[in-house]
Amino acid sequence: MYKVDLNSDIGESYGAYKLGMDEEVVEYITSANIACGWHAGDPLVMEKTVEAAAENNVAIGAHPGFPDLMGFGRRNMVITPQEAKSYTIYQLGALWAFAKARGLELQHVKPHGALYNMAAKDAALAGAIAEAIWQVDKNIILVGLANSRLTEAGEEKGLKVAHEVFADRAYNPDGSLVARSNPGAVIHDTDRAVARVVRMVKEGKVEAINGEDVEIKAHTICVHGDNQHALEFVNKIKEALLKEEIKVESMRNFIR
Amino acid sequence: MYKVDLNSDIGESYGAYKLGMDEEVVEYITSANIACGWHAGDPLVMEKTVEAAAENNVAIGAHPGFPDLMGFGRRNMVITPQEAKSYTIYQLGALWAFAKARGLELQHVKPHGALYNMAAKDAALAGAIAEAIWQVDKNIILVGLANSRLTEAGEEKGLKVAHEVFADRAYNPDGSLVARSNPGAVIHDTDRAVARVVRMVKEGKVEAINGEDVEIKAHTICVHGDNQHALEFVNKIKEALLKEEIKVESMRNFIR
Amino acid sequence: MYKVDLNSDIGESYGAYKLGMDEEVVEYITSANIACGWHAGDPLVMEKTVEAAAENNVAIGAHPGFPDLMGFGRRNMVITPQEAKSYTIYQLGALWAFAKARGLELQHVKPHGALYNMAAKDAALAGAIAEAIWQVDKNIILVGLANSRLTEAGEEKGLKVAHEVFADRAYNPDGSLVARSNPGAVIHDTDRAVARVVRMVKEGKVEAINGEDVEIKAHTICVHGDNQHALEFVNKIKEALLKEEIKVESMRNFIR
Amino acid sequence: MYKVDLNSDIGESYGAYKLGMDEEVVEYITSANIACGWHAGDPLVMEKTVEAAAENNVAIGAHPGFPDLMGFGRRNMVITPQEAKSYTIYQLGALWAFAKARGLELQHVKPHGALYNMAAKDAALAGAIAEAIWQVDKNIILVGLANSRLTEAGEEKGLKVAHEVFADRAYNPDGSLVARSNPGAVIHDTDRAVARVVRMVKEGKVEAINGEDVEIKAHTICVHGDNQHALEFVNKIKEALLKEEIKVESMRNFIR
Repeated sequence: MYKVDLNSDIGESYGAYKLGMDEEVVEYITSANIACGWHAGDPLVMEKTVEAAAENNVAIGAHPGFPDLMGFGRRNMVITPQEAKSYTIYQLGALWAFAKARGLELQHVKPHGALYNMAAKDAALAGAIAEAIWQVDKNIILVGLANSRLTEAGEEKGLKVAHEVFADRAYNPDGSLVARSNPGAVIHDTDRAVARVVRMVKEGKVEAINGEDVEIKAHTICVHGDNQHALEFVNKIKEALLKEEIKVESMRNFIR
Repeated sequence: MYKVDLNSDIGESYGAYKLGMDEEVVEYITSANIACGWHAGDPLVMEKTVEAAAENNVAIGAHPGFPDLMGFGRRNMVITPQEAKSYTIYQLGALWAFAKARGLELQHVKPHGALYNMAAKDAALAGAIAEAIWQVDKNIILVGLANSRLTEAGEEKGLKVAHEVFADRAYNPDGSLVARSNPGAVIHDTDRAVARVVRMVKEGKVEAINGEDVEIKAHTICVHGDNQHALEFVNKIKEALLKEEIKVESMRNFIR
Repeated sequence: MYKVDLNSDIGESYGAYKLGMDEEVVEYITSANIACGWHAGDPLVMEKTVEAAAENNVAIGAHPGFPDLMGFGRRNMVITPQEAKSYTIYQLGALWAFAKARGLELQHVKPHGALYNMAAKDAALAGAIAEAIWQVDKNIILVGLANSRLTEAGEEKGLKVAHEVFADRAYNPDGSLVARSNPGAVIHDTDRAVARVVRMVKEGKVEAINGEDVEIKAHTICVHGDNQHALEFVNKIKEALLKEEIKVESMRNFIR
Repeated sequence: MYKVDLNSDIGESYGAYKLGMDEEVVEYITSANIACGWHAGDPLVMEKTVEAAAENNVAIGAHPGFPDLMGFGRRNMVITPQEAKSYTIYQLGALWAFAKARGLELQHVKPHGALYNMAAKDAALAGAIAEAIWQVDKNIILVGLANSRLTEAGEEKGLKVAHEVFADRAYNPDGSLVARSNPGAVIHDTDRAVARVVRMVKEGKVEAINGEDVEIKAHTICVHGDNQHALEFVNKIKEALLKEEIKVESMRNFIR
């Protein structure tokens, strides 16, 4: 039977600032990437978000980012692999403690924003993130862009690795994402997006922007809960997956 | 046989900023309170400090503080018990991960600066810190000012608790510290300071500023490594303790 | 002719986080208190907010707060008068530069949140804030709670001072605000709130919570733009003031 | 008569963290680049540093950097020109207020660290920084690496511009600095460094790393006050300049 995970970034509020519709999106997803206080999130938010995930039976992962709250972790920063490693250890530990306090374990680590994108292309950065997880807990799954330096680094290290795909993004023939600034980078037709996801899960293939087929592993699909429209899209994907007899469950149940 | 622990705040450097003589002081102490990135410390410093403690066989503890790097965590902030709890969980988790990456366990949590002082007097704040430790790991020792609301809260919660004493500080008849702003608050005579510590450990008593004897438990003595003079003082205390046949070892060996 | 100013805290968004309905509220008010990047606001937000105020002919003021983004500047921090002075100079200067870049001058400084409340009661803190303004520019108006240590400090220093009143808050017989935690602290009846404001402006009096009349100067009324309801309230106040032939204009036009 | 300015980065302490020998180095230099609280410095430090500069008759400039205290502003961050502009306005304004409070004017703005290096090569970033100064005060001098995009942007904008040279650094044939990672990048022979500086000032030329002569304007020389050795080097340069009848004075006296 086919299986796939649905993940979303949540817990991105901070102090007086509220962001996202976490209460709604946790009802749809199977894995939550929880911000760890650097690019977003604060300890009160983290605690509350772990609780919301727990109540909805959603598996918990750390979502470490750059020390750049002002830029929401979306701006590239040139850091050393050693810095990437210890920043990941720090943030993963902070979230671990909230999970532990609730009697839960961390399922995964997924780097956020610019750190995710840079690590997808930079083997040294990717290796440092994999090393951080390895040193702290070899059972934690590393989530990275499918076919990237990050998933590669995790596999080389011997970690459990989840390849992440995007329903609404176009792919290059080498399996990388088409940059958002390029025409056709975002797929606005919901039905087409859903069909692509189903094919990625069932056939392990996606049609690249030039028409070629690319091999891709689709362990987990990234979805968003920013607004009502995003939630409807998540719902559609979920319905389509179930209709196609693809079981939607937390990645820890099928990633070895 | 009498036993006592020597603890010191280390890992207080930050980025380009170096503070303290950590490499020297870890050779004397048995427990290290390591800053967790809020009032001091950064992930690179934390990792390096855990390593230095490990190499010197010094037990590791988290030293959570207020989110006030500019004030070094020394300024009172009015936070709610819920904030105190989640701030403690966050920081303790961050340090836990560096310990885990090095194959070590956290021995203790000792709040820093203004948080330590406020929790010594405020039962709600103290209870929140004890609750944080309890939720994450019941085996972690809570270190607080001897005879304070903080040690009391730990004991009520059922945590292992270490009472901390100060060699160079005067005590009030109720067992609290004489405020630094008062005359006689700091004991400058090294021999007298050392003698007081020995008595606290052996007899469980200290002479208060008004001449009365106060009962006090002395599980761990706070020492400093800011400068050469401080290091010499630590050395003197250690020699005096050994001479008095008081064994100096990590608190985990004798706190139940 | 009677005159009064309407002020509101705006520019409180930060990075990816949006707060308040600044575009709407600037259409009603005559003075804007703009966050300076410490408790809220970032440089992009400050620049955009100055522009919005300028386009609506709203006078600009700095809204300095504690270095506590996580607590939105609403938590008391124990800082020294020297710190209060230099924190005020820093934040006022940052906003001054955005005003200058737009060809405008700073009209006023109004401390934010916990700093405002603490300075209302603490003469040393209040004096430090007044001193900061005095040193940078003697023409800048200090806005403080009516009848407080803050307005007093400004007057003693020789600054122009604006007494601020709250339409929806009850007053104690000594002219201070009834703490929010007390019953009756907030006036929910809009008509009553509006009538109180009109009386404060015209008669210089308000009925305290115990029924006594208190003398109060009402140079500027604090209003909010957090939500649609708040905006409607502002509109009502403004209409009532105009109907009572009270001219609503920027405080710089009538504060000497 | 030949004239040159000596500038140094000062005011880089932060809270409990002390960095640099500001009290000593201000006795040698003619212009101070004062950190503005982002990559280093805090308001208390800024106020004290302005005072120290004033007492030594040293002209004051803002030293804006990236929002990266943990990396001391030395790590590249990808920010937009709009962000660069408003970050510069913010920091320049903050320092302006401390200068104003002391009755002084800002002489210059020199970007710090990674922002300086990136702006030396990136015309859009450089233009944004020049625009920030232009909007706030057209009389403020922009200090940039000699022959760089930054000085170019200032000249195009119509600002007063000071070309900065380094005594101890090798130059490429195009006038840019040889990267520190390359062999020969740093000139360790003090006499040779001093001779190069004298030639830059008098002849407007420097020998590049390949032996060719490069044209270079030397309005101001960057010196350091990190340690005793650095101070001795500053002293040597200053003596050599005086001996060569090159007048060492603040750039505002000769930059038009």
